Amino acid sequence: MTATLTSATSDTYFTHLQCKECGAEYEAQAIHVCEYCFGPLEVKYDLSQLSEAVSRSTIEAGPPSIWRYRPFLPVTSTEPIDLGTGMTPLVKASRLARRLGLKHLYIKNDAVNMPTLSFKDRVVSVALTRARELGFTTVSCASTGNLANSTAAIAAHAGLDCCVFIPADLESGKVLGTLIYAPTLMAVQGNYDQVNRLCSEVANTHGWGFVNINLRPYYSEGSKTLGYEVIEQLGWQLPDHIVAPLASGSLFTKIYKGFREFVDVGLVADKPVRCSGAQAAGCSPIAQAYAEGRDFVSPVKPNTIAKSIAIGNPADGVYALDIARKTNGAIESANDDEIVAGIKLLAETEGIFTETAGGTTIAVLQKLVAAGKIDPEEVTVVYITGNGLKTQEAVQDYVGEPLTIEPKLSSFERALERARTLERLDWQPVLV
Amino acid sequence: MTATLTSATSDTYFTHLQCKECGAEYEAQAIHVCEYCFGPLEVKYDLSQLSEAVSRSTIEAGPPSIWRYRPFLPVTSTEPIDLGTGMTPLVKASRLARRLGLKHLYIKNDAVNMPTLSFKDRVVSVALTRARELGFTTVSCASTGNLANSTAAIAAHAGLDCCVFIPADLESGKVLGTLIYAPTLMAVQGNYDQVNRLCSEVANTHGWGFVNINLRPYYSEGSKTLGYEVIEQLGWQLPDHIVAPLASGSLFTKIYKGFREFVDVGLVADKPVRCSGAQAAGCSPIAQAYAEGRDFVSPVKPNTIAKSIAIGNPADGVYALDIARKTNGAIESANDDEIVAGIKLLAETEGIFTETAGGTTIAVLQKLVAAGKIDPEEVTVVYITGNGLKTQEAVQDYVGEPLTIEPKLSSFERALERARTLERLDWQPVLV
Repeated sequence: MTATLTSATSDTYFTHLQCKECGAEYEAQAIHVCEYCFGPLEVKYDLSQLSEAVSRSTIEAGPPSIWRYRPFLPVTSTEPIDLGTGMTPLVKASRLARRLGLKHLYIKNDAVNMPTLSFKDRVVSVALTRARELGFTTVSCASTGNLANSTAAIAAHAGLDCCVFIPADLESGKVLGTLIYAPTLMAVQGNYDQVNRLCSEVANTHGWGFVNINLRPYYSEGSKTLGYEVIEQLGWQLPDHIVAPLASGSLFTKIYKGFREFVDVGLVADKPVRCSGAQAAGCSPIAQAYAEGRDFVSPVKPNTIAKSIAIGNPADGVYALDIARKTNGAIESANDDEIVAGIKLLAETEGIFTETAGGTTIAVLQKLVAAGKIDPEEVTVVYITGNGLKTQEAVQDYVGEPLTIEPKLSSFERALERARTLERLDWQPVLV
Repeated sequence: MTATLTSATSDTYFTHLQCKECGAEYEAQAIHVCEYCFGPLEVKYDLSQLSEAVSRSTIEAGPPSIWRYRPFLPVTSTEPIDLGTGMTPLVKASRLARRLGLKHLYIKNDAVNMPTLSFKDRVVSVALTRARELGFTTVSCASTGNLANSTAAIAAHAGLDCCVFIPADLESGKVLGTLIYAPTLMAVQGNYDQVNRLCSEVANTHGWGFVNINLRPYYSEGSKTLGYEVIEQLGWQLPDHIVAPLASGSLFTKIYKGFREFVDVGLVADKPVRCSGAQAAGCSPIAQAYAEGRDFVSPVKPNTIAKSIAIGNPADGVYALDIARKTNGAIESANDDEIVAGIKLLAETEGIFTETAGGTTIAVLQKLVAAGKIDPEEVTVVYITGNGLKTQEAVQDYVGEPLTIEPKLSSFERALERARTLERLDWQPVLV
């Protein structure tokens, strides 16, 4: 066993792990499942000590990354791995809002998160910092693509050895975007759920730190920063409504946990936040359970272009379901055509190019507005979690072609005329 | 003519345009060439007023974007177009430094600049803010790819109509990464220099704001922020040496201008900064002039994988040449194989995936170190200007393949054994 025991130090406020189901407590080692009831383990903090030590100004004086929230994260290092991850823009989406009929719409844009352009950089920065503290020298993950990119990149920066597992049918940008960092890359002939099962076996036989298996309690805490940052960027206020994608459900539950923690330590005034979730219709086990009023999630076989969120057996599905219901949110799904339209809508109105997961979220946002499930007056925050350059296949056939011209003014003028005729331009140039 | 005259207001410190060659002065309109001598026009500021109004703390209290430096930029808007552009990480590159034998190496990582992952978002944010002030409703550019992405995205966000010109042979990621924002996209059958000439004609016949033609004086000022940010991120100090790519030469000259302005207004203590430039061997007119001791730059026909910096007739080439010489820097070039190796080296050591321009810069960094032209003790900053996901073709054949396995432990173990045999792993897993 490579892990060494770590306990809280003077400026560390996480204390132990606790089973979300039976409440059994564990020391903060590389474990993720309760020995008694097989429930998932979660990190616990001394919130009363935290509330005394942390204020808005101590946070604002911190680095421009997730590590400004270090006291709320499960690491002891005073020099965590920091490649500038987090503090991505909260963009006021006025043009998209007008298109949809909303008044106060914001995009939390993790399509430009650093270093690998998805929210996974948050969770991996935390997991690898913790892996290093626990003595691991080789790190690993089961991934739908973004996590592979992030684990390989941040491991390279930190000088950790890395072995990554992905489904063999991933988009080429996600494969290349992993190989470039020179990890060992295993392409598994199966879907993500099969990759995940294989990795659980490997985690038991090799002494590796799997960021989303034996390090999962630490890893998943990184997503809380998506809650913290939105509060801070809204001027220390909670939003009224959020819409986020659901894959394993972990992101969704941790954003909620982030909101609650900032209320609990007195950093923000409490108010209800409605939490709505988005799934691809081709892999929507949580949306199905929501629609059918079930409190359990039945696994499905994924079949969607939204590969990064295609988890048929979501580990935190029931918790996401519970949060959506108790906050008066909703869970909705979008089919592949709607996902592509969602990607294009966000790009054309806001200049933000997201991958299929983001297209799913935008498409679900549209549906929720159309169904009257989002009030136009609500301050609504939509979480965009990954970059469109990674899933170019998904939109390649739907964006048209450039107008090819010769390097001559006459050729340009003909093309411009053609474009106008085709109503590809809705403007008239001003002649001088 | 759509442009309206704008003069300095109380919190605006830019005053006029001035010819870099003959000194003739012009009002701050949409013009870029001197009527008398055809020299390029540059923005001038009231630096004495600026030095009274601005301090380190007023800057630090500003937004986490280039607009924290708004008094140093040629706009009058108090609400400039801000998609979170700038304030990209300055990464301490310890692993790359050790590999090269340097002690204080930093990467200024604009591969993760917002929103479109290149330094062009800086110049376009400034140009389109100014375009709006001058009354333009249609914006345009001649681009090698990154500028097309950025202009189309930021125009979409700002609700400006957009027509973009690119060479027809660009990388697919750059074409798709423009089309997604639904501009009119003209693919010109020719190289960048031909595209640029065509656009100069179009700028004369249509009343459009071409960011890098008639708006060029404003546009190019955006690159100064790459100088300002490095100073601020080094704790308000100048570096000893910088290495930056050279395309038109504008970026290079504006980083230098940024350094000088901060010295001139008293924000940073003066000291010599050596400025070195990188070109691709397949398009190295400035490096050739440097090597041959010429003070003029002879145009070349580009032939390199580094398309984003393939400008055969660089507008600011002689100014870049002058700065490299007077600061005791150097200009060097790297061939296509070295560029690919540079991309891989940066990814494997630092977890940063850059495009071909960045590979060029890293390859030149290596050469300068090997030639003794960078002292190991120098605080050296390397500018990485674009993201590798945009030029996947360049490295696709050089990163290997994943190991394809069945979703079974035995298949994984066989693959791992094979990988080790092939010495693709330099580590041994710890058995528990």
